[in-house]
Amino acid sequence: MFHFTITHHDQSSSARTGLLHTPHGSIRTPAFIPVATQAAVKALSPAQIEEIGFEAVLCNTYHLYLRPGSKTVQKLGGLHRFMGWNKPIFTDSGGFQVFSLNDGLCTVNDDGVEFKSHIDQSKHLFTPEKSIQLQQQLGADIIFTLDVCHDFNADYPTAKKAMERTHRWAERCWKEFQRENQKKGIVQALYGIVQGGKFKDLREESARFIAKLPFQGIGLGSIFGEPKAPTLEVLKWMMAILPHEKPKHLLGIGSVDDIFNYVELGVDTFDCVLPTRLARVGYVFLRPESRGKVRNKFRTRITNARFKEDKKPLDQHCGCYVCQNFSRAYIRHLFKAKELLAYTLTTHHNLFFFQRLMQEIRESIENDALGRMKKKWLK
Amino acid sequence: MFHFTITHHDQSSSARTGLLHTPHGSIRTPAFIPVATQAAVKALSPAQIEEIGFEAVLCNTYHLYLRPGSKTVQKLGGLHRFMGWNKPIFTDSGGFQVFSLNDGLCTVNDDGVEFKSHIDQSKHLFTPEKSIQLQQQLGADIIFTLDVCHDFNADYPTAKKAMERTHRWAERCWKEFQRENQKKGIVQALYGIVQGGKFKDLREESARFIAKLPFQGIGLGSIFGEPKAPTLEVLKWMMAILPHEKPKHLLGIGSVDDIFNYVELGVDTFDCVLPTRLARVGYVFLRPESRGKVRNKFRTRITNARFKEDKKPLDQHCGCYVCQNFSRAYIRHLFKAKELLAYTLTTHHNLFFFQRLMQEIRESIENDALGRMKKKWLK
Repeated sequence: MFHFTITHHDQSSSARTGLLHTPHGSIRTPAFIPVATQAAVKALSPAQIEEIGFEAVLCNTYHLYLRPGSKTVQKLGGLHRFMGWNKPIFTDSGGFQVFSLNDGLCTVNDDGVEFKSHIDQSKHLFTPEKSIQLQQQLGADIIFTLDVCHDFNADYPTAKKAMERTHRWAERCWKEFQRENQKKGIVQALYGIVQGGKFKDLREESARFIAKLPFQGIGLGSIFGEPKAPTLEVLKWMMAILPHEKPKHLLGIGSVDDIFNYVELGVDTFDCVLPTRLARVGYVFLRPESRGKVRNKFRTRITNARFKEDKKPLDQHCGCYVCQNFSRAYIRHLFKAKELLAYTLTTHHNLFFFQRLMQEIRESIENDALGRMKKKWLK
Repeated sequence: MFHFTITHHDQSSSARTGLLHTPHGSIRTPAFIPVATQAAVKALSPAQIEEIGFEAVLCNTYHLYLRPGSKTVQKLGGLHRFMGWNKPIFTDSGGFQVFSLNDGLCTVNDDGVEFKSHIDQSKHLFTPEKSIQLQQQLGADIIFTLDVCHDFNADYPTAKKAMERTHRWAERCWKEFQRENQKKGIVQALYGIVQGGKFKDLREESARFIAKLPFQGIGLGSIFGEPKAPTLEVLKWMMAILPHEKPKHLLGIGSVDDIFNYVELGVDTFDCVLPTRLARVGYVFLRPESRGKVRNKFRTRITNARFKEDKKPLDQHCGCYVCQNFSRAYIRHLFKAKELLAYTLTTHHNLFFFQRLMQEIRESIENDALGRMKKKWLK
């Protein structure tokens, strides 16, 4: 039931539009996938996520495994029913959280990775097989292989060792995935993750290895939070090798300029906590017509004193529910008064910003005008 | 533009249905008015409040005076525009918060009441004139006189002194209200508040005094949080004297049994933080069909371990957005995971419970079946 159709190719880049078909409906790509870490997009209801126009969310296996437990989610009918979201869901493998939340305290060997719960310090082991089993219990539409995550700037031996382990784990993940899929007829898609740090030969080797396995899609790993120029190079090396027809997901990315650059290289989906996390500390996104630009990272901080009596909406060129109904002064007041509605309204606005950005990117690709749009946004 | 029409009288009690017409639309009574202390119903957007079916909210003058300031709200176009709510709004006088949040630290004399801000400890003075001016700046549809609040169980001399001062303040409030209303043509309704503690002669004297002044409606003060039997008596004394045709608002009340009892005495509107405040600590209301009863205060605590794998909605006989889409297990999970959505969903459910209760009470009155409904609920 899972397949990917490319619907249009941009004339001057590798960007493309597509349709990612899943058992819970289709996703128009390129798409931004909001993060629902603990089976909830922070501060918004599924009805609001749908109202904004999103067609999928991404949940974190690590968090749901620890609380409420993936077996509990399974007993309750799986993630879709559990969180009241009947459209496509992605889950990550849990690897990233194990490595990042444990900050050097986890123990990796060929078998898997041992870590302590950030909730109660209890010890746990993730193996490739277990990560797949957990993701099958959760029941998302698109799931990922367990990979060894590391800093983008890790040295060559570290990156090589992690990549080789990632490859062995990818094979084990695929095997486990197939076993269950054949036995129980679970209809999920598994994305294999490319690693290799910042090194050309490793990234190319990893891309070739992952490309050869019969994954339904490809995840591009360990790119986030790094200097932009080198990561763009790394992406180019991988994309040159990876099979054109497979959907590609860039894990943990999106700033506005990253999205333009990576869409141009052929990336289809992105997930990132940026719009939701920033919303909760008062940062709101601005379109280029409203002075959003690379220099101000397309955002302003609504808690700033200069908005105290500002009658204008967050962004006069936005058009979301929030910008149609509330002033900057009101939303600033909600932050100052610590009203929960503050987080709901800024999260809604920021996600609308990304949803509309992706919609305009898709339209631009279809009109062969992505270059013009990118120039307008990143000038 | 303000008037009150009684549309039906119950046959076996003093309950009545009515329509409270305001410049921002009508309110069907008896009605429960959700509290939006700082110009926001905690955890819900105005769109959600409207979706639930509410026709009015009540904001607290004390809080808005201190933050963002009533002049700021006025500059931003008044409360309705400020908070994006275009239906009727009530504001209280600020008196209750001054007396309760300052807990013996405020200084009252005939001029007014001096208090310290709970935000920054700065000193402020509320006089009857100032309370009216602030409420005129905020621009709600229905506003209240400044009264001297005290514990229901205060002794006779204390209650008498507070009542007499409340009466002098009521006259000053009316005078100030009229002056501004005539000068600027502001269309608001002013409710005068009856006091008198637990003493029959004082409550009757206060009811007679407030009834004689040309207020558009009557507020019934200092009833909350007290033993039920005596407060019911106090209400009866007042209602026997107060003019039948004027709308009556009971300040700060709402438990389910209180609402039935006071509706039967002829109370038209209620405001209370109970459903919203309890929601945020995990208490959810249950209808009688779902084992809600006086003994369990019509509620259960969703954070309880027994709901960990409970697939059922909060209340199987509810029908709100939350009960149509989410399980007890999911909402318990959101509380355990401290997800903001937890507070939104339980608040939504609890307010829906009260909105539907009032709707059914109105229907029962119109069908002369309030007694039967009360028996079913309070058995």
